Amino acid sequence: MASGDRDPAPHRDLAAPLGPVVGMVGAGQLARMTQQAAIALGVELRVLAGARDESAARVVADVRLGDYRDISDLRAFAKGCDVVTFDHEHVPTEHIRALAASGVAVRPGADALVHAQDKLTMRRRLSALGVPCPAWAPVQSAADVEAFAEEHGWPVVLKAVRGGYDGRGVWVCADAAEAREVLATGTAVLAEAFVPFEREVAVLVARSPHGQGVSYPVVETVQRDGICVEVLAPAPDLDAEDAAVAQRVALTVARELDVTGLLAVEMFQLPGGKVVVNELAMRPHNSGHWTIDGSRTSQFEQHLRAVLDLPLGSPAMTAPVVVMANVLGGPDPDVFSRYEHVMAHDPGVKVHFYGKQVRPGRKIGHVTAFGDDLDEVRARARHAAVHLATGEYV
Amino acid sequence: MASGDRDPAPHRDLAAPLGPVVGMVGAGQLARMTQQAAIALGVELRVLAGARDESAARVVADVRLGDYRDISDLRAFAKGCDVVTFDHEHVPTEHIRALAASGVAVRPGADALVHAQDKLTMRRRLSALGVPCPAWAPVQSAADVEAFAEEHGWPVVLKAVRGGYDGRGVWVCADAAEAREVLATGTAVLAEAFVPFEREVAVLVARSPHGQGVSYPVVETVQRDGICVEVLAPAPDLDAEDAAVAQRVALTVARELDVTGLLAVEMFQLPGGKVVVNELAMRPHNSGHWTIDGSRTSQFEQHLRAVLDLPLGSPAMTAPVVVMANVLGGPDPDVFSRYEHVMAHDPGVKVHFYGKQVRPGRKIGHVTAFGDDLDEVRARARHAAVHLATGEYV
Repeated sequence: MASGDRDPAPHRDLAAPLGPVVGMVGAGQLARMTQQAAIALGVELRVLAGARDESAARVVADVRLGDYRDISDLRAFAKGCDVVTFDHEHVPTEHIRALAASGVAVRPGADALVHAQDKLTMRRRLSALGVPCPAWAPVQSAADVEAFAEEHGWPVVLKAVRGGYDGRGVWVCADAAEAREVLATGTAVLAEAFVPFEREVAVLVARSPHGQGVSYPVVETVQRDGICVEVLAPAPDLDAEDAAVAQRVALTVARELDVTGLLAVEMFQLPGGKVVVNELAMRPHNSGHWTIDGSRTSQFEQHLRAVLDLPLGSPAMTAPVVVMANVLGGPDPDVFSRYEHVMAHDPGVKVHFYGKQVRPGRKIGHVTAFGDDLDEVRARARHAAVHLATGEYV
Repeated sequence: MASGDRDPAPHRDLAAPLGPVVGMVGAGQLARMTQQAAIALGVELRVLAGARDESAARVVADVRLGDYRDISDLRAFAKGCDVVTFDHEHVPTEHIRALAASGVAVRPGADALVHAQDKLTMRRRLSALGVPCPAWAPVQSAADVEAFAEEHGWPVVLKAVRGGYDGRGVWVCADAAEAREVLATGTAVLAEAFVPFEREVAVLVARSPHGQGVSYPVVETVQRDGICVEVLAPAPDLDAEDAAVAQRVALTVARELDVTGLLAVEMFQLPGGKVVVNELAMRPHNSGHWTIDGSRTSQFEQHLRAVLDLPLGSPAMTAPVVVMANVLGGPDPDVFSRYEHVMAHDPGVKVHFYGKQVRPGRKIGHVTAFGDDLDEVRARARHAAVHLATGEYV
């Protein structure tokens, strides 16, 4: 961003706040959907946006333009906020520490958030806690990777220590030659054993500074090319004991890492039912979008309650089966012209559009469907998501 | 409003809209809650506010300051809107006609809206349609009222032809002396027979320009001092045939009056089950706030879909019993300090706060509770609403 675009002052005269002010760094769709929850609670949401046309900047009164990598922009942004929280994990850890040192309530705090920012730190800590993880090792060189492969076999998964998301920063290497290619980019990586999982599941929990914790039901996440395309809530045919173990893992991680706010724990489920932890996110998460319509408390409201240290809300579902499907940008950007078919075809499906420019493959919205029968609900969600994206009828 | 406060330009630089722009005249809590639905649909909501601290002006990016009674403010506001609609019924009918004449899509249109603005016009039209109403008559003088009373008995209800709401503009006159007092104020009124009703019910329907109609379940509205304090959805112990008749009445009125958007029909239910129409409102309505959490499609989303001529959403309920209780301002304005008890006591109750200054008796928010048992759900909603308002435990 050009520095001339920075403007830490609000972009219009604002009324004096009547409720708590929560500052969210980042103005993507997570901040946008947090605004829906903030409106209900009477919380005044302020966002730090990189540009005026970002998803949340379109729907919030108190928008500040600035750079989340710049400590002076962050300080200006935080002034007057009761709490500062995040729409993404890219704020430098040292800046978060600096804000906290100057008295800003930052939730989650730097010591927790670093585990969602730095995968090596995360693996070290989870292993020390006895939380099940894939085999892993720090690697600096091709020789390190080959030594790891000797013990755990190929393929080896190399992951960027920092900055990956939506499949970026993850390389499944079939052999030493592929690993050398990744290392040659200079990206700092760690090695993980390839997990022959049955499916991917996720557990979303919230934890408040008081220490109260809440877990949503375990969901199944269906990925394509590293991007989540579908979430099934609850995870179908999941053994009750396996579900309880997965929820306990997530609540333990939240407690031990002193997470405040939301924690999404992405897991691989192995043949036999056991889970190992894949990734952590400390914010509202794609695997929880179904909660907006499918749970008594949306993940966005839950996050606000948690960071404000309010008692947490019920995670009870509003239907036996809920399916969320992401809408990924297709070749034709005129999504609105396709509302008519989707809404006429299925009056019970919920459409969420993020106010983002349509680019092929970009997450531009999601849909949610409800019912009793998984196959039927899943087909409805898929029909709506595919039609919105492409105009096709599936 | 001082004319110097008017500013029909947006109060910050806005990104070019990606979705349809809906302009809502008025910036109260109805516009505020409409913003939650607009965010999901990717609709860009613009509000015409009288001041920056109004409920919706706090949570919308595109706020225009202006006077809804001033045609030039309305014209400036409407420029660039795909549709203009309303948060209240106080825009002069002739201004709405003028906007429409200059090509603005105004929904509902003036010919429909006048029935929610002018009770004499409403009574004439409904009677002509054969819709059940209390006995009524236009009255100019005490002699007119006495003649009406001779036929229908005392008390006689005098209602302001224009401008009443929340019990204001309604006088129950026990005798000719009381009627003369009302007439002496110079307010234009009509006379209605006092209806010995069993209870009050309401039917909320939506209708689109295409002519599609949807009815929510009939609800019972509990009033105190002319203000709605509680809504029970569905209306308890309502005979299925009586419910169908009430819904048919509302859908008929919507069709015959060519309503676009929402229509709330407030009714008296008589001993035996029959209903007569009390009032009409053509906008989201207090009797429909339960739909935010209690229906698959909130009334606010439904209103946006209807005015944008999109297919209407499912009115299905998300729980067997839903109770909404209004939070009326009490003596202590610090509502947020009471969130802790309410949320800890009942993690399943939904709290909605409107971002309005607390004044005794003012509607400042509402709560919604869900379940299977009416008495239990009602007690939970009442507990939360009373505690938020007053700090008392009931």
